[in-house]
Amino acid sequence: MTLNETHDPSLKSWVASANDGQTDFPIQNLPFASFRRRGSQEAFRPGVAIGQAIVDLGALRAARPFEGDAARALEACADTQLNTLMALGPQAWSALRLALSRALREGAAQRGLIEPLLVPQAEAEFTTPARIGDYTDFYISLHHATAVGKQFRPDNPLLPNYKWVPIGYHGRASSIGVEQRFPRPVGQQRPAAEGEAPLFGPCKRLDYELELSIFVGQGNAQGDRIALASAEQHVFGLGILNDWSARDIQAWEYQPLGPFLSKNFASTISPWIVTLEALEPFRTQWKRPEGDPQPLPYLASEANRAQGAFDVQMEVLITTEASRARQAPPARLSRSNFRDAYWNVAQLITHHTVNGCNLQAGDMLGTGTLSGPGASEAGSLLELSQGGKTPVALPWGETRTFLEDGDQIIIRAECVKPGYPRIGFGQCAGTVTPARL
Amino acid sequence: MTLNETHDPSLKSWVASANDGQTDFPIQNLPFASFRRRGSQEAFRPGVAIGQAIVDLGALRAARPFEGDAARALEACADTQLNTLMALGPQAWSALRLALSRALREGAAQRGLIEPLLVPQAEAEFTTPARIGDYTDFYISLHHATAVGKQFRPDNPLLPNYKWVPIGYHGRASSIGVEQRFPRPVGQQRPAAEGEAPLFGPCKRLDYELELSIFVGQGNAQGDRIALASAEQHVFGLGILNDWSARDIQAWEYQPLGPFLSKNFASTISPWIVTLEALEPFRTQWKRPEGDPQPLPYLASEANRAQGAFDVQMEVLITTEASRARQAPPARLSRSNFRDAYWNVAQLITHHTVNGCNLQAGDMLGTGTLSGPGASEAGSLLELSQGGKTPVALPWGETRTFLEDGDQIIIRAECVKPGYPRIGFGQCAGTVTPARL
Repeated sequence: MTLNETHDPSLKSWVASANDGQTDFPIQNLPFASFRRRGSQEAFRPGVAIGQAIVDLGALRAARPFEGDAARALEACADTQLNTLMALGPQAWSALRLALSRALREGAAQRGLIEPLLVPQAEAEFTTPARIGDYTDFYISLHHATAVGKQFRPDNPLLPNYKWVPIGYHGRASSIGVEQRFPRPVGQQRPAAEGEAPLFGPCKRLDYELELSIFVGQGNAQGDRIALASAEQHVFGLGILNDWSARDIQAWEYQPLGPFLSKNFASTISPWIVTLEALEPFRTQWKRPEGDPQPLPYLASEANRAQGAFDVQMEVLITTEASRARQAPPARLSRSNFRDAYWNVAQLITHHTVNGCNLQAGDMLGTGTLSGPGASEAGSLLELSQGGKTPVALPWGETRTFLEDGDQIIIRAECVKPGYPRIGFGQCAGTVTPARL
Repeated sequence: MTLNETHDPSLKSWVASANDGQTDFPIQNLPFASFRRRGSQEAFRPGVAIGQAIVDLGALRAARPFEGDAARALEACADTQLNTLMALGPQAWSALRLALSRALREGAAQRGLIEPLLVPQAEAEFTTPARIGDYTDFYISLHHATAVGKQFRPDNPLLPNYKWVPIGYHGRASSIGVEQRFPRPVGQQRPAAEGEAPLFGPCKRLDYELELSIFVGQGNAQGDRIALASAEQHVFGLGILNDWSARDIQAWEYQPLGPFLSKNFASTISPWIVTLEALEPFRTQWKRPEGDPQPLPYLASEANRAQGAFDVQMEVLITTEASRARQAPPARLSRSNFRDAYWNVAQLITHHTVNGCNLQAGDMLGTGTLSGPGASEAGSLLELSQGGKTPVALPWGETRTFLEDGDQIIIRAECVKPGYPRIGFGQCAGTVTPARL
């Protein structure tokens, strides 16, 4: 894919809030979600963000304003979520983006048609952007894998497969949601002494994980592989993911088959998916640290090295009961960047299907915790508090090693570069409520 | 649940093939599947097996022959698969079973209505009985866990959590199918020498895993738990599962987050689900080996101990290209019994939801490989061939350590006891085809 007229940085929208230089959603972005009016009994339907508004694609579809591939793509917005659109593939997505870009520009003839179909984001509620059939979580931050590995194996933090295999495992699809509030999980934890019965009760080491989500568009038939060169054509776009983790439950249960109840109680995602096409101006070189092995041939190509990564800046913020009571602004816990990941989007798709595993439209891949190289770039409290040993100070006087009841984690992401409008991802927000005993 | 008139061993059906004493599907069974006529473009719809026939529940629904809960349950068979029926819960399932039992008995007035709606099983094709939202695989055979553990840790095969935690992890839902033929998976394998690049190519240690599947009926809301006493009310029934495994891919990829590409290329299930109600006469005591700890209180009750297990006998058979060419009958590789599992159905449901994880109608739990205590009861070639060291002899002169191209694995299951008709599960059959290079 290359830059096209939808990426023209000088484009302005007749939706004034899209042009303020602060919004996540200028006309160069045009991310997708599934929404309805808050508190209504309306059906959820696809929408596109523009400034502070949502273009109601379900309603726009009835007006049949577009032709060709764009019309076909808009027809797919009869779905409550984006699965039908996702399954159409990049030609349809791109045509719809172009048609929407033209219709939302200053001076567009279709303003009269679309303006009555705008819904303020402040009046909307969201569901997951797709019916997520399967959720796969990866582990693609070398910095995170090293930091976590150090807590178990100080002298040998990285396992021998790490630099060769994009490590991944299957997660739980049913408990993924947007704007979640969930009770602190309860479960078994390591015995107080070897040979004793395990402890049982509310998790004491509840954590967040800063991740991005990758939504699959067109899938592949079972038995087929997706080659690296065409992998990105199967990706609809990226969002934000918080893969909440119960560290004490995890430590006791995870051997030998991996995390289970420590992760599957809730996973919060952002409502908006930013398309790969919108991210096109933020491609960047994918590279490995000096001296590290290059990937096996099925995961390597010149094109992938040259521009396989994306420059997406992320930040994690926290509010607590105390901070909200005193109306303190959210405190930033860390920042990091997706370009520092050890594997990139195309490699994950290709690796996932190398054995013939079939991906389907709406499937979600998580990147795994995206910690960066610096200490302030850790994507979890486990890392920031060094396994709970060093409390993190919050500006309003509290400290945290792990999350407490009432804590809210907000993750934001954005793409920024000089001379181009800021491309934001909206936010991924979730709140821990007390355990149910 | 208790025995009722549908369990009367003297019941006979007006479908003669249900009364031959050999069938998997006497009138006391009445398992459910989703089917259509083979090679047709018909919609899949629910059906119930009786002898060699299927009662077309989609067609029966149009005739509205039942009343009350049974009518409500039959109305749910407007679905292509069983999810809508599953979501109704045990009162509706039980009412439908009773109505079908009465309508299929010798002398039933509804014979004239139903007989034209029978489809021979030999003329049917099947899809998965449910749209499987999430698939969780457990690891509940102590014998399997010990045998596999010994290959990695001869002196200490079982990890400290095994006797406390029903170990489970999430599997891939998209690649589950019935009557599968799938290409041998390709992927990374352990390097020939430490520090070298991993090997890459077709799996050389392809295996089957003998399992049962547990289908969730009514789910639970996220954040809620399902108590042990009500856990079985959330289970629609049991089927057969073959969790194909690429052992060489698994050995290289699985640390630290568990199996991924070694499992998700294909998982084959039987088309038929035998309801828990049909299995009621085959309940048996659930017990632990002498000296083993009793479960934590959330996983323990007198009632669960008294009758939490099911006496289901299973067998694994193989055919090969050579055996089929000479029309040799399938060779049995092993037999084992579900009653020997270390955890039971109710415990798996309760453990899965103790942290608030939500189950949904149609979700599938696998038991994990159900190896029994004896050497001939191993549920995988990994165990039968002792990690590939001891070839298994087949009666037609071939041997196997792992599966070869063209091999077909057939798993059958049945419940047998004196004075009661045999309750069969049909079969789970899948075939390995050559790798696609």
